[in-house]
Formats: sequence, structure tokens, C-alpha cells
Amino acid sequence: MAKAAEQRQADRSVRPTRTSVFTSVFAKSVFTGIGDDCAVLRLRPGQESLVTTDFSLEGIHFRRDWHPPESVGHRCLTRGLSDIAAMGGEPVAAFLSLALPRDLPQSWVGRFARGLINLAEKFGVTLAGGDTAESPGGILADIVVMGTAPKGKSVLRSGARPGDRIFVSGELGGSAAAVAEMRSDLKNENKNKNKKLNPRDYRRHFYPEPRIELGRVLREKGLASAMIDTSDGLSTDLAHLCEESGVGAELDAALIPRARVGKLSKKVDLDLALHGGEDYELLFTVRAGKRIPAQIAGVALTEVGHITRGPKIFLWIPRNMVHELKPRGWQHFQR
Amino acid sequence: MAKAAEQRQADRSVRPTRTSVFTSVFAKSVFTGIGDDCAVLRLRPGQESLVTTDFSLEGIHFRRDWHPPESVGHRCLTRGLSDIAAMGGEPVAAFLSLALPRDLPQSWVGRFARGLINLAEKFGVTLAGGDTAESPGGILADIVVMGTAPKGKSVLRSGARPGDRIFVSGELGGSAAAVAEMRSDLKNENKNKNKKLNPRDYRRHFYPEPRIELGRVLREKGLASAMIDTSDGLSTDLAHLCEESGVGAELDAALIPRARVGKLSKKVDLDLALHGGEDYELLFTVRAGKRIPAQIAGVALTEVGHITRGPKIFLWIPRNMVHELKPRGWQHFQR
Repeated sequence: MAKAAEQRQADRSVRPTRTSVFTSVFAKSVFTGIGDDCAVLRLRPGQESLVTTDFSLEGIHFRRDWHPPESVGHRCLTRGLSDIAAMGGEPVAAFLSLALPRDLPQSWVGRFARGLINLAEKFGVTLAGGDTAESPGGILADIVVMGTAPKGKSVLRSGARPGDRIFVSGELGGSAAAVAEMRSDLKNENKNKNKKLNPRDYRRHFYPEPRIELGRVLREKGLASAMIDTSDGLSTDLAHLCEESGVGAELDAALIPRARVGKLSKKVDLDLALHGGEDYELLFTVRAGKRIPAQIAGVALTEVGHITRGPKIFLWIPRNMVHELKPRGWQHFQR
Repeated sequence: MAKAAEQRQADRSVRPTRTSVFTSVFAKSVFTGIGDDCAVLRLRPGQESLVTTDFSLEGIHFRRDWHPPESVGHRCLTRGLSDIAAMGGEPVAAFLSLALPRDLPQSWVGRFARGLINLAEKFGVTLAGGDTAESPGGILADIVVMGTAPKGKSVLRSGARPGDRIFVSGELGGSAAAVAEMRSDLKNENKNKNKKLNPRDYRRHFYPEPRIELGRVLREKGLASAMIDTSDGLSTDLAHLCEESGVGAELDAALIPRARVGKLSKKVDLDLALHGGEDYELLFTVRAGKRIPAQIAGVALTEVGHITRGPKIFLWIPRNMVHELKPRGWQHFQR
């Protein structure tokens, strides 16, 4: 838990760190939050705990010149919430470790906190603790999210069997398209233009929606045999799921739902939909006999292929040969 | 949970990050660990969960030229375990988020992991997950430790009442004495001497022992009315405890157990014992009637003062006036 001396260190330059970040209303499962050595959580009986931790590091996961502070806070918590969604769990509490450079403007921290807390409140998540420190360089955040699911009901990556159908929620490649756009601006060195993307045209990148409700319904109705979130990109996340399940897969390129982005709502290239990460959609498998509605909780569901004995993953492309699909995961923002 | 792309990024320079760090044996309360979106933990019924998170950042909490990698790993986990001890809890699982610079030698990571895992095994703690990433600068670790205590039995900071006696475990100031020594070497610019401290002469700094067993016994026997660990230093941690309990305190300087350090086992100055942090001893209060043995679980216990109506904290110094004691917490390693 945060120590007072670090707190003071952080306070020296950026005032409202711990206090303003951690003023969320306590949920009833969080018995003691900030102000003791540990947070104390009391779960309902019959539940298992889900725990996930994710870094958000400046220069690796976000850039101050690309991302508004609210977006950084929102995306930071989304990373954790999306992992809870991928288990079919319900989020309970979050813990934020935040290290800040001495010269960071106070307003940045306030806006970051707002982005994070808005999302936390939307999903009834209590900010129950964390740590603060001075950063040796750049803004460093690590988010821990705890959730619950009924004992034995969490949807694992390892449940897929040959013959299962593969579904994906929403659309893919939208987040990576924003990164591609910002990167190409860098290359052109249009520094005078300073063409910042409008977050409204690229919501899936700047304000991704964790699929908590969808994951919960899939778990409750016993529809998903295996599940993962598309944080690394379809090719990589499907490879994870197949590896944990000991199976392979075939995907149909024509079926993959490609995101529409930008002012002109242009469909992204297949490559971005296949390999671009950070869409935070759910990728799940379904036993042969089960019916899946066209959408759940307002999110479209698309069948994109099926599970094979494996171990390889193949991609069918129309008017083309079948390819082996290699995971070409997400590289974040290489400097 | 760690994403494969980051994993690959980290792998590029320092091979055995996630795999070698996370190969601890799974405890029975950790149902699913590495390899899914979340870790799944199943606690015994009637338990409450304790959660604590702590940064260990290069240049802030440790320095590569001062601390052997094993010590960095050991101290990283100690910070979390000590918070569990201060609740009277039993540690269950740890989650390590680790960001590494591209050029970090592989051997550093292996030795860091060894230090951390040795301590984890000693206390039966499962390394159940975490995250890995490339660091934008310096080694960045964030440790999450989860523990349990019987429902309603965790020892909080807020339970102290006027008339309670104040106890501290072990000796104080030993860790800060090592830092003072290393700092004075810096000032003298004895660069040719490169006089590294021998960790054996300063064990409380390099390999502090979290007081898990002591905390558990104090909780089980109902001896401690309030408890905190001395991570920020006696003056600051007592101020935390008093603030949460709404009380004040009087300390007797002559009673404070001052650590013996260095080759000559010299007693540290009172100032270090009062204000030096990172000793990870337990500071606790005891109702007037209760008897406290001279030691518990092999750790000496010393009565150092008593709780008053407050709110101020006073220090009695022999042959001197009584002083108000202001918290002068721990500043880590200012660069």
C-alpha cells in the first residue's frame, strides 16, 4: 500500500495524486480501502477471485503528445477490465500504482484521474488502493483489477475443442488504425501541422469499451467454451487460445469484421483487423450445437471460423490460397 | 495479465523474464495462474482478502550500483509481505509487473528473480501472474501481494485507544544506516574505492525479514489493538497509526531499540531509529491489561511508549525536555 513518504514526494510537484485519484465511493465488498496497510475485501460466498495486472507506461503504451490524459486513464483501466470480461467475471475493485515525473503539470494528473474514475464508476469498480512514487522518468502506471465469478464458472482460454465455432465481438483493427495514422504523421514530419487525431473518430483506440456485460452473459448462459480478449490482435490472441486449449483453427478472412474509422468511416485493411491490437473485443469459441444471437448487450457477434485438431492456424482468403496464419502481435509504440 | 507482445518485446533483450520469473509451484488456493486473462484464486470460506501493491523503481527505491539484484528482488517482495504482516494476515499469492530496459543483462533478471522467489517460497507465496513490458527507462517493478485473514480479524491501524501501550518489534534504523553509509560514500566521491557495503553487515537493509509469523500470532491471540509496519520510519508510521485511530502518543527515546550495524556492530543514532524507514518491523498497540512476552516467533518486542488522547505525538529524551515529534518520513534515494 502507498507509503506516506512517497506520497509526499509525489505531492511536491503534482498535488492531487493519491487523494484525488482515490476518492471513489466504496463498494460494499471493499471493507477497508485507502488508509491501512492493505485493502480488505470481502467477497460473497461461492465466488472465486479474478486478478489481473497491467502496465501503462509512457512511450510504450501511450504517448503524451498523442493521447489526452483522460484517454490514458481510461485505457489504463480498460486493460484490466477487459481481462475480467474475458473470464466472464464481474469487476469489484481496482488498485492503481502511479509514478509521476517531478515536472508533470498537476492538470495532467487530474484529467488522467477523471478518465480512469469515470470508467470505474460506470462499471461499479471501487478504487481501493495502490501506491504512489516519484518516477525516475516518464509517467508509469500499473493497474490491478480484481473481479469475481461463481466458483468454477470462469471462462478459461483452455476450453476450446475441435469443431467449436469461433466468434468475435464488435469490429477489429480500429485501434491499430489510429496508431498507424499517428505514426505516418510522425514519418511525414508534419510538425507544423501537428495534426492530432480527433478521439471521436477513433473511439476504439482512445476510449475502448471493455466488454464486461457481454462476457458476463456468455458465462451465465454457458455459451462460451473458451474466451480471451483481443488485446494483442486476432492472430496472436487466437494463437494463445489455441495453445492453451491444445487445438488449431481455421479463419475465413471474408468474415472478419473490419472496423470503420476516421471522418470518412473507412474500413480498415485486413492486416490491421488480423494483427492490430488493443481493440479489447472478446474472442470466444462455441460448441457446435449452440445458437448465438446476432448481438448480446448491444454488441454485434460475428462467426469468423472454427476450431480444428491443430496445432496450426490457417486463414482462408477469397480468390486466393489458404495461408498459415502466424501470430504477428502488437508492438505498442516503438520509439 | 501480461500480453504476449510485451512479452516478446521484453524477450528480445532479456530472455528469461516471464517464464523464469513465474515458475513457482502453484499453491492450492491459486486455481489458475499464468496463461489466462486473469489468475483465479479460491479462498477458504470465512476469510477476507488482503491486497497491497508496492512499486520498486530503479533510482527511487533501489540503485543498481548499491543493491545486488537478489537484494532488489527480495526487498521488492518484502514490501508487500510486510503490509500483509501488519494486518496479521497470511500471504497467499503475488503478482509481479516488471518492465526492463532493452540493454539489461540477462543475468540481472535471473538473480532478481532468484531473490524474489527464494523469499516467496519461504512464505509459501505463489507467484500467480503479473505483466511484463519494455521499460522506457530504468528497471520498474510493481508487486501485488494478496493474503487472507479470518473475516473481521484483520488488525487495522484504527484500533488504538488512549492508555494502550506501544510496542515495536526487532530494532530500528538499521536499514537507514546502510543508506546513510552509501550516501556518504557518494559525497566523498571515493569512486576509485568503490566501497560497496557488505550485505551481511547490513542485513536489515539488503534482506529485510517480513514479520509474517509475528503478525499472525499477534492477531490470533488478540494482542494487538492496532498495527502498522515501519516502512516509512517510526515517527511517520506512528503518526499514521495515531491519525487513523484519532489519538496521540508519548514515546520514551531511551526505550527505542536502536539497531547495531556494520562490521563493528555499532548502535545507530537515535535520529535514524526515529526517522529511518524500510526496517519492516511491526509497530503495534496493546490494551492496558494484556501481557506481552519478551519475544514472539523469535523476534524481540519492546515497549516504547503509550497512546494518549492526542492528537500530538511527544518524545521524552533523558536529561532533556519533552519534544513534539514530527513525522520526518522516509525519502528513499533522492538523486
